[in-house]
Amino acid sequence: MEKNIVVIKGDGIGPEIVNQAIKVLDAIACQYKHTFHYQNILMGGASIDEYGVPLTDEAIKIAKASDAVLLGSIGGDTNTSPWYQLEPSLRPEAGLLKMRKELGLFANLRPAYLYDELKSACPLKEEITEGGFDMMIMRELTGGLYFGERETKEIDGQMVAHDNLVYSEKEIRRIAKRGFDIAMKRRKKVTSVDKANVLDTSRLWRKIVNEVAKDYPEVEVEHMLVDNCAMQLVKDPRQFDVILTENMFGDILSDEASMVTGSIGMLSSASLREDKLGMYEPSHGSAPDIAGKDIANPIATILSAAMMLRYSFDMDDEAKAIEDAIEKVLKAGYRTVDIMSEGKQQVTCSKMGDLIVENL
Amino acid sequence: MEKNIVVIKGDGIGPEIVNQAIKVLDAIACQYKHTFHYQNILMGGASIDEYGVPLTDEAIKIAKASDAVLLGSIGGDTNTSPWYQLEPSLRPEAGLLKMRKELGLFANLRPAYLYDELKSACPLKEEITEGGFDMMIMRELTGGLYFGERETKEIDGQMVAHDNLVYSEKEIRRIAKRGFDIAMKRRKKVTSVDKANVLDTSRLWRKIVNEVAKDYPEVEVEHMLVDNCAMQLVKDPRQFDVILTENMFGDILSDEASMVTGSIGMLSSASLREDKLGMYEPSHGSAPDIAGKDIANPIATILSAAMMLRYSFDMDDEAKAIEDAIEKVLKAGYRTVDIMSEGKQQVTCSKMGDLIVENL
Ligand SMILES: CC(C)[C@H](C(=O)O)[C@@H](O)C(=O)O
Ligand SMILES: CC(C)[C@H](C(=O)O)[C@@H](O)C(=O)O
Repeated sequence: MEKNIVVIKGDGIGPEIVNQAIKVLDAIACQYKHTFHYQNILMGGASIDEYGVPLTDEAIKIAKASDAVLLGSIGGDTNTSPWYQLEPSLRPEAGLLKMRKELGLFANLRPAYLYDELKSACPLKEEITEGGFDMMIMRELTGGLYFGERETKEIDGQMVAHDNLVYSEKEIRRIAKRGFDIAMKRRKKVTSVDKANVLDTSRLWRKIVNEVAKDYPEVEVEHMLVDNCAMQLVKDPRQFDVILTENMFGDILSDEASMVTGSIGMLSSASLREDKLGMYEPSHGSAPDIAGKDIANPIATILSAAMMLRYSFDMDDEAKAIEDAIEKVLKAGYRTVDIMSEGKQQVTCSKMGDLIVENL
Repeated sequence: MEKNIVVIKGDGIGPEIVNQAIKVLDAIACQYKHTFHYQNILMGGASIDEYGVPLTDEAIKIAKASDAVLLGSIGGDTNTSPWYQLEPSLRPEAGLLKMRKELGLFANLRPAYLYDELKSACPLKEEITEGGFDMMIMRELTGGLYFGERETKEIDGQMVAHDNLVYSEKEIRRIAKRGFDIAMKRRKKVTSVDKANVLDTSRLWRKIVNEVAKDYPEVEVEHMLVDNCAMQLVKDPRQFDVILTENMFGDILSDEASMVTGSIGMLSSASLREDKLGMYEPSHGSAPDIAGKDIANPIATILSAAMMLRYSFDMDDEAKAIEDAIEKVLKAGYRTVDIMSEGKQQVTCSKMGDLIVENL
């Protein structure tokens, strides 16, 4: 098959980790007789430096015309980088939010699971994680507080700010369907998270999720308040299969869940819409402090590339081949510094990329 | 001294845990020659059953005229209790929110710390919690998404809901001041948590916190994004002293922090305003499943009563006496079932109350 992949290397460790993912994709293309065309565009800090804005219309146009987008990471140190002196709509993150909205990527999938090989990095006691855990956070990505109208103005001599949290039936229904579809391919349990004892949007969320649930009689559905979910992720992560939630709650809970695994350098993510187009990126950030040192962990990005093959290109075998190769490399004892432990072999970012290619 | 305490026993385990706190308060009154007058009012489910509303105007009037309010817990099982068939504004939680707003209790203090005696209950690995941790979550309690205008309406044939997140300069300034005041009495560090890369309210929050910080040159202040904070609480809770944040983020993070301690049956909370009036309640919920069995842990409520003595009545010695008594009882090996571990002596809720009184 022939596919057009738009590549956004981004800021910080972005370029070095994306380079490893491309190495792996090239090896896959060769082995399975595919042709991947790559086209680089800029987003975030790199785009600000070049064009003065975090995302150009031209870049959006190119992304829209592609088969999938592979993203490293964007943004810098908010305390020291000049990008954060700009007004909010011109900062790196605004580019990412604009891309999500313009491409209509409403479904954000963030897997969080315990790697058997990396148990020692998990912050939770062993009795809690015994037997492992494996959840998929399904976060709504183009609605809610992120995209509601907002304003700061002076009222009676003092500044007052507001952000509007909005959800429509349609927005809730489409993400709920996605969540249940994914649960059907997993352990058939959906935990829908909201704050229905306070918010109108949450009450509508719960109602629509219950309606959608009727079409999936095999799936067990439960509703959990967001504060309780923040507790349960620490208390007993094994109880979760698919966590379905709105944009802001999903931002908080998915980061908490990823830290609970202890290895955020290993967690991928996919942002999808109704058709096959998607954007794929590691769950972690741009880590400006270690950028350019060839010590970052490229595995989350390589796993994101595998998700791209599976979700956007229907290349299940190829995706599986990458995942297996990563497992082999970990089993053989190779580790980047973030997941290093006693008795293992520490390797650089590019060496990790090479090892994964060798094990394909 | 003579003090008027309004008592809200509430629902579920509320009555039994409040009874233990009153036992302890009576013993303190006797020992230190104070007179505490108690007046019971209803709130939550109990008020719905009696008056059809979760909080009456009469009850608010009585609370407003008191020196302090001691609360057990309110609410029932949201899946089975008839209270949750009522419209949202008539459910138990609406009573609690109304009380907070009517009394103007804008500052919610939720301590979360690791009890040396209860380390085994902490879900985090020992290497992370070595030496213990001790933080104070300072949550804004009468603004934000909880009290903004909200509505659900039909637009073009589909339901659309919205909740408005609003903060004024004044609201932010008064909670920030409280946070810094408390930090001055602790380890002099404030971590202000927001989502300033997305929300206007968060950008105003950050600006005002920085302004207030200027009046506290001794206090170290840092800003952290809410998603990062959700990670850091699991990764390294020792880094925090005072966490200062808005209403919804505070709801989520304080529950996460309390679970990180492993003993939510031990965590108190205070809701304060500018003057001395405050409402004091355990951080945990009403646990309807174990109500009436005399097995609940009353310590969080007893510690809340101690906070009441300290913050509303300026009775520091008396508060300290209660805290010391609890520590003695734990050292002696007595545990309610929720914090039970091997080799310890399991006791009932009322027995725990008696033991604490004996050790005063
Ligand atoms: C960078 C930021 C705007 C973004 C978000 O909040 O969505 C990030 O935290 C994420 O989770 O992808
Ligand atoms: C009962 C509920 C409305 C309340 C809140 O969200 O504030 C509770 O979770 C709390 O934290 O006190």
